Amino acid sequence: MQREHFLNIFFEPKSVALIGVSRKTGRGSFNVLENLIRFGYEGNMYPVNPNGGEVLNFKVYPKVEFLPEGIDLAVIMTRRDVVPAVLEKCAKKGMRGAIIITEGFSEADPEGKFLQARIDDTASSRGIRVLGPNSIGIMNSFGHFSSSFVPLPQPLAPVALISQSGGFFEGFPDCAFGKGIDLGNTCDVDFPDAISYFEEDDDIRLIVLYVESIKNVSEFILICKRVGRSKPIIVIKGGRGEFGGKASASHTGSLSSRDPLYRGMFRQAKIFQIDSAEAIGDITRGFLSLPPFKGNRVAVVTPTGAGAIMALDAMENQGFRPAELTRKTIDEIAHLFKPWIHVGNPLDLLSAGMAHGYKHVYSKVLESCLRDETVDIVLAICGAYTVKTIKEVMKRSPQKPVILWVLGADKSLIEKRTDLYGIRSYYDSPDRAFSALKVIREHYIRRAMTN
Amino acid sequence: MQREHFLNIFFEPKSVALIGVSRKTGRGSFNVLENLIRFGYEGNMYPVNPNGGEVLNFKVYPKVEFLPEGIDLAVIMTRRDVVPAVLEKCAKKGMRGAIIITEGFSEADPEGKFLQARIDDTASSRGIRVLGPNSIGIMNSFGHFSSSFVPLPQPLAPVALISQSGGFFEGFPDCAFGKGIDLGNTCDVDFPDAISYFEEDDDIRLIVLYVESIKNVSEFILICKRVGRSKPIIVIKGGRGEFGGKASASHTGSLSSRDPLYRGMFRQAKIFQIDSAEAIGDITRGFLSLPPFKGNRVAVVTPTGAGAIMALDAMENQGFRPAELTRKTIDEIAHLFKPWIHVGNPLDLLSAGMAHGYKHVYSKVLESCLRDETVDIVLAICGAYTVKTIKEVMKRSPQKPVILWVLGADKSLIEKRTDLYGIRSYYDSPDRAFSALKVIREHYIRRAMTN
Repeated sequence: MQREHFLNIFFEPKSVALIGVSRKTGRGSFNVLENLIRFGYEGNMYPVNPNGGEVLNFKVYPKVEFLPEGIDLAVIMTRRDVVPAVLEKCAKKGMRGAIIITEGFSEADPEGKFLQARIDDTASSRGIRVLGPNSIGIMNSFGHFSSSFVPLPQPLAPVALISQSGGFFEGFPDCAFGKGIDLGNTCDVDFPDAISYFEEDDDIRLIVLYVESIKNVSEFILICKRVGRSKPIIVIKGGRGEFGGKASASHTGSLSSRDPLYRGMFRQAKIFQIDSAEAIGDITRGFLSLPPFKGNRVAVVTPTGAGAIMALDAMENQGFRPAELTRKTIDEIAHLFKPWIHVGNPLDLLSAGMAHGYKHVYSKVLESCLRDETVDIVLAICGAYTVKTIKEVMKRSPQKPVILWVLGADKSLIEKRTDLYGIRSYYDSPDRAFSALKVIREHYIRRAMTN
Repeated sequence: MQREHFLNIFFEPKSVALIGVSRKTGRGSFNVLENLIRFGYEGNMYPVNPNGGEVLNFKVYPKVEFLPEGIDLAVIMTRRDVVPAVLEKCAKKGMRGAIIITEGFSEADPEGKFLQARIDDTASSRGIRVLGPNSIGIMNSFGHFSSSFVPLPQPLAPVALISQSGGFFEGFPDCAFGKGIDLGNTCDVDFPDAISYFEEDDDIRLIVLYVESIKNVSEFILICKRVGRSKPIIVIKGGRGEFGGKASASHTGSLSSRDPLYRGMFRQAKIFQIDSAEAIGDITRGFLSLPPFKGNRVAVVTPTGAGAIMALDAMENQGFRPAELTRKTIDEIAHLFKPWIHVGNPLDLLSAGMAHGYKHVYSKVLESCLRDETVDIVLAICGAYTVKTIKEVMKRSPQKPVILWVLGADKSLIEKRTDLYGIRSYYDSPDRAFSALKVIREHYIRRAMTN
């Protein structure tokens, strides 16, 4: 439990009422109670369903009125037309928060809009905080709490998702979320609340936002600027184009605005907008596995000259540049190369490796680069079977970031080898590597400037 | 063996002299003879090394002069200073082609430049065709021939690499090469020769170029325009920026020109320039696994509205658009959705799936989309455990392309499931999917226009 924040009630409730819980259980039943048990939730659970009886050995209360006093949180998944009345009753019972999973409100039809207005009224008059409606709610792997009706994985990943959609709780390739909040139609709880919640949450090091629209722009910018100093905030804006913009209106009932406005807002908020989902995983892996760095001078160690050239093109696009190695470094390794070869960065070592043993040369050259004070980052281009050699050198120089571009068509072999040696900072291409490094570097520069 | 082309001697030699072959064997020895045996080469091999004797049970000829007449091809890996004389002797022995692996020519120092000029002289006066120098040479998995001193995989992949570097013979993630040619310093054999060679090669369906510089621009454009009609040609230009351009001068001795000039040339040649290595795998997987398509109307089947919105943004960027489904399609599936939900494309089916069984609903909706004549392509957004359901529907409609964006953080699970059901057309993000589809679609449009 962190410092006092009203979202504690949502992320770590001591007791929860599950109102409108399904009586079906098992595969395909989308039963919140069942998911919560599977998630290892240790608080008290109070299922509510008009039919009463028992579900999964829990007594089912036929009405909200019959519940005991003092329950922290309601999770509401009844028919939409009864939601406002149920919320009212929850407030009367003294519950301090409610997650409304039910859909069919402002994102749907006029009746839905009317119903959502009634929810708004209750929230403001009764003081009960509302997440949703049209929300999967909360996922907290660390606290073993989830209101999801979809079974979710439970990774203890130091990454939080704040999203106008629950569809991404399962994560993006190479980016698992340890905590998540689906803001749904944001009738009450909104981005600033959630961002400030994670500010002092020690479980979380990186925050990912999926945004369709921001209501309170100045508050959003203020909070992002503050929280972004300590934790990088990555944002994906959905509904950037004509087609996506239209669809977002019927998804969360929000009017998605034009792309340049949002781009400007995110820039002002000093958070990192990315346009492609795979970049989330790229940044996450790099940020969580690399030591901090602020410089942009890169040494490239490579068995292929063409690979080095592609890497130089990629780094230049993202504001990085080849390091100019010191005389000392060159002198340390020059004897490995043929006399007519210009020894410098990028370090193309295939023929040196043929003459003196490939892994020996790779190790020596990588080591010298890591010792060189003109080098901020090393890019190691390699085949899958050089990963072990690289890891051994990395272990001796943990203070300097090493990223890998592993060549070869067999992705599963590459993943097997990098997994085996615990390397996370490898990329499918130098372009993806340096795109991710650019974001990470900007974060560290900003952090250094503001601390 | 295809029609008469002088490169047949290089790709499918009946006999080969290995001049300057190493006497070391085993791991780390970089022995061409050993690699060739491992590759299953069935022609005659004649190792040459001044020390004579035997290597791997092959008689070693101490001099080129002692070789029998009528050998097709020489692979030369001697010291650089004797290369011109060796080439001369090979020509005298009646060999028709030579791969010069030795490095240290025009990419190195003044002496190297002088030596390369002597090679040029011999090639033009004697009529022997020369690949290289500074080249790994040839890799032909189908014909079991390779001149590589690096052990290579041998995938029967219908993709050819033509490269100013041998470093990419091992492939890029998700793109294995069944045949490859490293042009090295291109003193004789050059891009147009190699591109025309693959034109009528039935083993090859897709051609990838790694280019640092093009010498004969008009010939290059002419050949590309012709071959590109039947087989897509993808090109990566190395040395696009300042840093990469400088490095390419010392890599293949070529002066890399400014990026916009090359960009224009590739456009004129009607080939597809891509800037990021991972796009090679994306295009290759899509092209080899999807049925042909020319339209740009996409149906999106999804359990997450936000995923659909990101997909709409991505498709719009690449010239695709959401299909407007027919009344018939809507009528077929409308009963699955709640009455207040607008049923249309994108098809967000989570709540319908909760009510009527998720896999059942996914199947039905996907099937209806595939039958709809306004739909050219279907994007199926899903979790790893829906892949099987999707594959079953795909099998019944093999004529329409289906691509998958599989959500979830666990890439190895995603790969396991897609492998298990033989699905190759899945992507890490809709952005990568539609970037690849754009290239594939342009190829099919062009092919239809010119046939």
